[in-house]
Amino acid sequence: MYTLRFDSQTYLPPESTSTMSSSAVTYARDNQQRFLGELKDLLRIPSVSTLPEHKDDVRRAAQFVADEMKRIGMEHVEVIPTTGHPLVYGDWLHASGKPTVLCYGHYDVQPPDPLNEWHTPPFEPTERNQNIYARGAVDDKGQMYMHLKALESLFKTSGGKLPINVRLIIEGEEEVGGEGIARFVREHSDRLKADFALVSDTEMFAPDLPTLCVGLRGMCYTELEATGAMTDLHSGMYGGAAPNPMEALARIISKLKDENGKILIPHFYDRVQKPGADELQAWKSLPFNEDHYRKTEVGSKELTGEAGYSVLERTWARPTLEVHGMPGGFIGAGGKTVIPAKAAAKISMRLVPDMRPDEIFKLYSDFVQSMVPKGIEIKIKSFSMADPIVINTDNKYVKASTAAMKDVFHKETVFIRSGGSIPIVADFEKHLKIPSVMMGFGLPDDNLHAPNEKFHIPNFYRGIESIILFFQRLGA
Amino acid sequence: MYTLRFDSQTYLPPESTSTMSSSAVTYARDNQQRFLGELKDLLRIPSVSTLPEHKDDVRRAAQFVADEMKRIGMEHVEVIPTTGHPLVYGDWLHASGKPTVLCYGHYDVQPPDPLNEWHTPPFEPTERNQNIYARGAVDDKGQMYMHLKALESLFKTSGGKLPINVRLIIEGEEEVGGEGIARFVREHSDRLKADFALVSDTEMFAPDLPTLCVGLRGMCYTELEATGAMTDLHSGMYGGAAPNPMEALARIISKLKDENGKILIPHFYDRVQKPGADELQAWKSLPFNEDHYRKTEVGSKELTGEAGYSVLERTWARPTLEVHGMPGGFIGAGGKTVIPAKAAAKISMRLVPDMRPDEIFKLYSDFVQSMVPKGIEIKIKSFSMADPIVINTDNKYVKASTAAMKDVFHKETVFIRSGGSIPIVADFEKHLKIPSVMMGFGLPDDNLHAPNEKFHIPNFYRGIESIILFFQRLGA
Repeated sequence: MYTLRFDSQTYLPPESTSTMSSSAVTYARDNQQRFLGELKDLLRIPSVSTLPEHKDDVRRAAQFVADEMKRIGMEHVEVIPTTGHPLVYGDWLHASGKPTVLCYGHYDVQPPDPLNEWHTPPFEPTERNQNIYARGAVDDKGQMYMHLKALESLFKTSGGKLPINVRLIIEGEEEVGGEGIARFVREHSDRLKADFALVSDTEMFAPDLPTLCVGLRGMCYTELEATGAMTDLHSGMYGGAAPNPMEALARIISKLKDENGKILIPHFYDRVQKPGADELQAWKSLPFNEDHYRKTEVGSKELTGEAGYSVLERTWARPTLEVHGMPGGFIGAGGKTVIPAKAAAKISMRLVPDMRPDEIFKLYSDFVQSMVPKGIEIKIKSFSMADPIVINTDNKYVKASTAAMKDVFHKETVFIRSGGSIPIVADFEKHLKIPSVMMGFGLPDDNLHAPNEKFHIPNFYRGIESIILFFQRLGA
Repeated sequence: MYTLRFDSQTYLPPESTSTMSSSAVTYARDNQQRFLGELKDLLRIPSVSTLPEHKDDVRRAAQFVADEMKRIGMEHVEVIPTTGHPLVYGDWLHASGKPTVLCYGHYDVQPPDPLNEWHTPPFEPTERNQNIYARGAVDDKGQMYMHLKALESLFKTSGGKLPINVRLIIEGEEEVGGEGIARFVREHSDRLKADFALVSDTEMFAPDLPTLCVGLRGMCYTELEATGAMTDLHSGMYGGAAPNPMEALARIISKLKDENGKILIPHFYDRVQKPGADELQAWKSLPFNEDHYRKTEVGSKELTGEAGYSVLERTWARPTLEVHGMPGGFIGAGGKTVIPAKAAAKISMRLVPDMRPDEIFKLYSDFVQSMVPKGIEIKIKSFSMADPIVINTDNKYVKASTAAMKDVFHKETVFIRSGGSIPIVADFEKHLKIPSVMMGFGLPDDNLHAPNEKFHIPNFYRGIESIILFFQRLGA
């Protein structure tokens, strides 16, 4: 997934792909333009959860979602405060004897920087080439909104009823670690009681290939804070005597991984499980061209990573470690001859089954502290932690979802993993004891977390239709 | 120098230190408060040469200096445009048969960041404990202004005459590499014809120890620009396949120096000259306490640098390499899971005789390019270059300056080196064929280039008196 093999022009338009007769699908098609207009209104709200100055915008996005839930017919709609940004909850539980789905999504978005690389402003949604460009278009406002519009289509064409029981829980802290929803799931599992969860925050492996994501990497995000001298010093006067925390961090970072991508933290790989032979074999038959991926998605001279593993294995089934930025010192234009008193490094690790984030954080911290150069002190903070996960595909929810997508796409669904992390999926499994169906309609080149994020508009519509048919099959 | 051994309270006030009778000294003492007030006016101008938004402020500071030159009696005063910030020139050349001094200083200052660490605002000069706190107080506005006030005192008490011929050249690009003055010195050496230069941009080794600086380290300031992918990528999706330029830079930085401070660039040390036995012996007798220096100036747990050399040798007579900052990636609060497309590292080297900046830049660039990890491209820029220098002390200008300081301080002058770089001193030697007298009155704890920069007010006054007596001795 997140790997582009086909030209975008090869998809069939949604009108010609579904042979399923459903008045809800007809309703969805008749209302496509309005649905898209409403999504644009939501995308205009800069609900950047990581930046304190956008707190009110995040709150505004929560209210938008709550209002829309009420409008379409959901009950018990509530904006639930947390210590951070609020949750939005709603339910409809009158399909006696039918399964209950817990629909999850998030209304918060990543920061839009670097702003100067956007072709159109990140919070002014713009249509180009059948795509809608905006921060949050696909991650996750657009995909979360598919759920609401599928439910609206079902309500409006069935006399205000749904084929199955539905709970919606939409969070506003996904991009900052999701602490609020994690606590809510732990402490109020009764309010989220369901048979399975539907999570649309993933992508299709290729533009017209229906895809379920059945594995996620976990996460351990840290920040190293190094201190040397008590104040910034002149590198002429003190160069040769004062410790340099920026250099110390560079030295530590260089020892966390070898030149071939192998992570050097002792016992780091101890719990890593290799995917089964069947799964590895299935990945080999996916339409993946490494050279095309390198050129069109990464755009670098060469790909990197551990020797002896394919790109899909390296990004789905192997742990990694990345440096995201190094605050501190002088970063303006030109030169300033300062030995910074403090410097920091933002470093995260992606984990795979059966690695445990807390254990990894401990191993990492011990290893970092064992390498601190003289004259330097290092504090280690952790931000977000997430368990890695693999989903069992042998259940009726997965079967109904793939059948629904076959109705829309006329193709068998492929099972893939994601290199990303959706911590809530592990929490659903652990605290609610339910499996998740990760049915996503993003595309590999959607620029998640990067400038010019987009959502392919036909996929927005196909997602709505797939969810309608999925719920109708389960309720039949 | 820049090493504090005594408590600041041990100095004698200037009133009791000079037994020299001079009406110019008396005038300077009678006008101390006004001199200080004028300096404050100059310090209020935020003439940060490195920041484009302060271009007009830099220009305003140049005009302030030019106006003051005219007011005290200098002739041919001119603000000379350069491709960057202007030079200010003035002269008085009517002391027939007497030597000619070229007084050098700079009116530009370093950026004030980090702003939140200043106790009082950097451009609101504030008196505390006999110090004046402001960006540029000692580097170099306060010291440059000593020259003007010494000249004013001489003019006003000798019927508008000076004891020697004087040229003033004050630049506005010292903190950004001094390209304008370097070109002017190369191309207009006739306009700067003099017998020696007086440079007050250095410090005293200890608070009441008159000091001449007779050696400077050279400089080679660079920026590495690393590029990996064509756009910022999500570390979940691409971690394990995409190259990380921030990590690549960390890896390169860690290989530029070993853990003991030895620089690993091949042939880097080839031209390094060891100071003579006499000079090394003289340094041993300087009042230097390493533990006090570590605690009060550096404030780190341990000092760093090459094994086998004293702190003074390491900071004065050994080359060093420092990382100043690493722009790129995500440096805001919290976490963002980005693999940056680009990252940079600001790295400078301090050079000692007889190293050559251009040659070092070539050795450094070749070594860096030999270590570029796969998938990464690196561009190398150079900002400022300066030759290292050692001054011969056996001339009448040095002798007159030390005699003048003995009149003021009642102590013999110590000869030290500086770890910093004043590129213009090498240019004066090379193009004007004149020696420099580096007579500075800063103190080791003046926080150059750091928050809470200060100038000790009694030293401002003692500097003015020393320059008056120096010029009177030369003209006698």
